[in-house]
Amino acid sequence: MIATLAGGVGGAKLAHGLAGCLAPEDLSVVVNTADDFEIYGLRVCPDLDTVMYTLAGIANPATGWGVAGDSFFALEMLRAYGEDTWFQIGDKDFATDILRTRMLAEGHTLTEATRALCVGVGVAPALLPMCDQPVATMIQTVDGELDFQEYFVRQHHEPTVTDVRYRDIEAARPTKPVLAALAAAEAIVFCPSNPIVSIRPILAVPGMLDALRASAAPKVAVSPIVAGSALRGPADRMLESLGHEVSAHGIAELYAGLVQGLVIDEADAALAAPIRSLGMEVLVTPTVMRNDADRQTLAGAVLGFAASLRENAR
Amino acid sequence: MIATLAGGVGGAKLAHGLAGCLAPEDLSVVVNTADDFEIYGLRVCPDLDTVMYTLAGIANPATGWGVAGDSFFALEMLRAYGEDTWFQIGDKDFATDILRTRMLAEGHTLTEATRALCVGVGVAPALLPMCDQPVATMIQTVDGELDFQEYFVRQHHEPTVTDVRYRDIEAARPTKPVLAALAAAEAIVFCPSNPIVSIRPILAVPGMLDALRASAAPKVAVSPIVAGSALRGPADRMLESLGHEVSAHGIAELYAGLVQGLVIDEADAALAAPIRSLGMEVLVTPTVMRNDADRQTLAGAVLGFAASLRENAR
Repeated sequence: MIATLAGGVGGAKLAHGLAGCLAPEDLSVVVNTADDFEIYGLRVCPDLDTVMYTLAGIANPATGWGVAGDSFFALEMLRAYGEDTWFQIGDKDFATDILRTRMLAEGHTLTEATRALCVGVGVAPALLPMCDQPVATMIQTVDGELDFQEYFVRQHHEPTVTDVRYRDIEAARPTKPVLAALAAAEAIVFCPSNPIVSIRPILAVPGMLDALRASAAPKVAVSPIVAGSALRGPADRMLESLGHEVSAHGIAELYAGLVQGLVIDEADAALAAPIRSLGMEVLVTPTVMRNDADRQTLAGAVLGFAASLRENAR
Repeated sequence: MIATLAGGVGGAKLAHGLAGCLAPEDLSVVVNTADDFEIYGLRVCPDLDTVMYTLAGIANPATGWGVAGDSFFALEMLRAYGEDTWFQIGDKDFATDILRTRMLAEGHTLTEATRALCVGVGVAPALLPMCDQPVATMIQTVDGELDFQEYFVRQHHEPTVTDVRYRDIEAARPTKPVLAALAAAEAIVFCPSNPIVSIRPILAVPGMLDALRASAAPKVAVSPIVAGSALRGPADRMLESLGHEVSAHGIAELYAGLVQGLVIDEADAALAAPIRSLGMEVLVTPTVMRNDADRQTLAGAVLGFAASLRENAR
């Protein structure tokens, strides 16, 4: 049993690699839901959908989000109706949001709705929202506070981030399937997702850190920072403006005391020793996932690294 | 000021013709909402949308319903999710349903939502739901009672109809804009829509008949039956199984005492005298609307007929 914590595209890629290494019943993906929001009257869960479409093999490879080959007729019509269509949703993607919104309106939990959607697209591993309560990442910028998608999509994550909070997180709780997955896990993998807006909201759900600490399984993170830059998105600028070191070593500092191992890219091999001095093991390996083979190779390396940590701990 | 009562495709065509004859502020279209229903969690209003798309000039000419050139990616995805997609909604059409559902959820009335949608697609005449309360046409068939769309779309209006009722009609009321349109009208036109499932639900809204009778304006109906057949849909079979005469004369019997004039097709010229003996005037003119010019010609004839009735009544 492997549990992994994931945000959007980077998390989806490693989760996809792990799904290629493991039997479906042996993988649980705990997904950030703090960037979920409502638009056009529908409940949109960008990270859940990115992971789901990626695991289903139908993700748009060009964008990372949405469904491959999707069209945008509904969005075009919404624009004709005068809607501000800054948040793009494809026609097939709308079907996902329509069904999820209906299931939530009928009283189902987000966990139940996600399971039903996964069955529909043939995703067998457990895709688990971190919680069933709505939580909203709020981005404090030099120009004021923004909703996450407002910052990330509408403003192309350009504003300088001065603080991040997770609204309504105090009322959130890890779901039973999440707690069960963490309790049963032989290894817990922190995907190379943005540590501030993808992984940290998961950790911030009250009870989540206790569950992680209660697990005897080795926790292993994969650095989303390679050679001082984020491969995708604003993680590097965000780390910098929030006062963190923008490097794999900076990632190690963020996760120190929580993970027993960090996977860093070959480009950062020189950081292995300083990271080890923070009290964690280091695996140096190629971490950039350019294709399906890369994903599976990295997943295999991560699983091997976790297994070695488990052996050493005996 | 002209008010017209309309159902779906036939009503939309004549309303479109009237819109070509009149200034936008001089036309109000009161539309049947008893075949509205909920599917995929969205509120769908087939007659309102058919009239709206037709007046906007974007209706699919091949089907009569939906938007010209629309695609069906969302529906395809809904099918992949295991939804029973017997009710087809195109991607652009979904945008309409998504926005309407959101506006209703926000507490707006159907009248307000319809007005906003009309602004979006550039429809200037007043498109007025008959009421803001949900009403549902229920079709009693030899095989049991069916929801209207279940009968009409899913079962291709094949089952023999033995009775029709309008569920929750007792709680419905004509909206203020509908009452104002009827009160201000110089003529009230009953479109060539199905008399049982399009026009009669409008008339069955408590208070609607009183408002029609209170109006001194001539009421003129256009027969949807030509040469003993409906041009479209099940009106002919429905009239027959409900014990009505399937002819323009049968239509006259249904509307006797309510309208002062009936427009019938040239093919039914021989019925003019028997219809007159029911106590209404008759206009014999081509009523089949094959193209935009036909719509406008028929609208002009109907308006002229109503004007002559108004003159004669002085």
